[in-house]
Amino acid sequence: MKVSTRSRPSAVAGAIAGVMRENGSAEVQSIGAGATNQAIKAVAIARAYLSEEGIDIVCIPSFIDVAIDDEERTAIRLLIERR
Amino acid sequence: MKVSTRSRPSAVAGAIAGVMRENGSAEVQSIGAGATNQAIKAVAIARAYLSEEGIDIVCIPSFIDVAIDDEERTAIRLLIERR
Repeated sequence: MKVSTRSRPSAVAGAIAGVMRENGSAEVQSIGAGATNQAIKAVAIARAYLSEEGIDIVCIPSFIDVAIDDEERTAIRLLIERR
Repeated sequence: MKVSTRSRPSAVAGAIAGVMRENGSAEVQSIGAGATNQAIKAVAIARAYLSEEGIDIVCIPSFIDVAIDDEERTAIRLLIERR
């Protein structure tokens, strides 16, 4: 899922938690410092939600190139997995 | 280690890689979106460095309260561990 500066971390966290329960892994993408900050906050919140259910998540950050309006941008990809 | 907006991600990545080789785990703290963005970039770069050596790292984000100049601030703590 895509996270922007305006994304609410708690809402993104709820979505991450839902996907993790369903699939066992999730992926979040962000472009720019504000969006990446919201994304990492969302992972921290999702981690708290899921730990109450005995699900221990970790995140694996990497860079990916994405095309936006025909422009190449570097995004941060957070892959979220169960430990 | 503390990361600020002005930290160079590649320099922080080198430090993370060194600590991971030595200790098997590392911790990075940041306050604010700019610093957290540098921190997560540093983890992505360190991951690339260490994967060449067969070391697979993951990161575990959480919130922590830190006192700075007698003021309580919320920081992001990235715990970095081998998978």
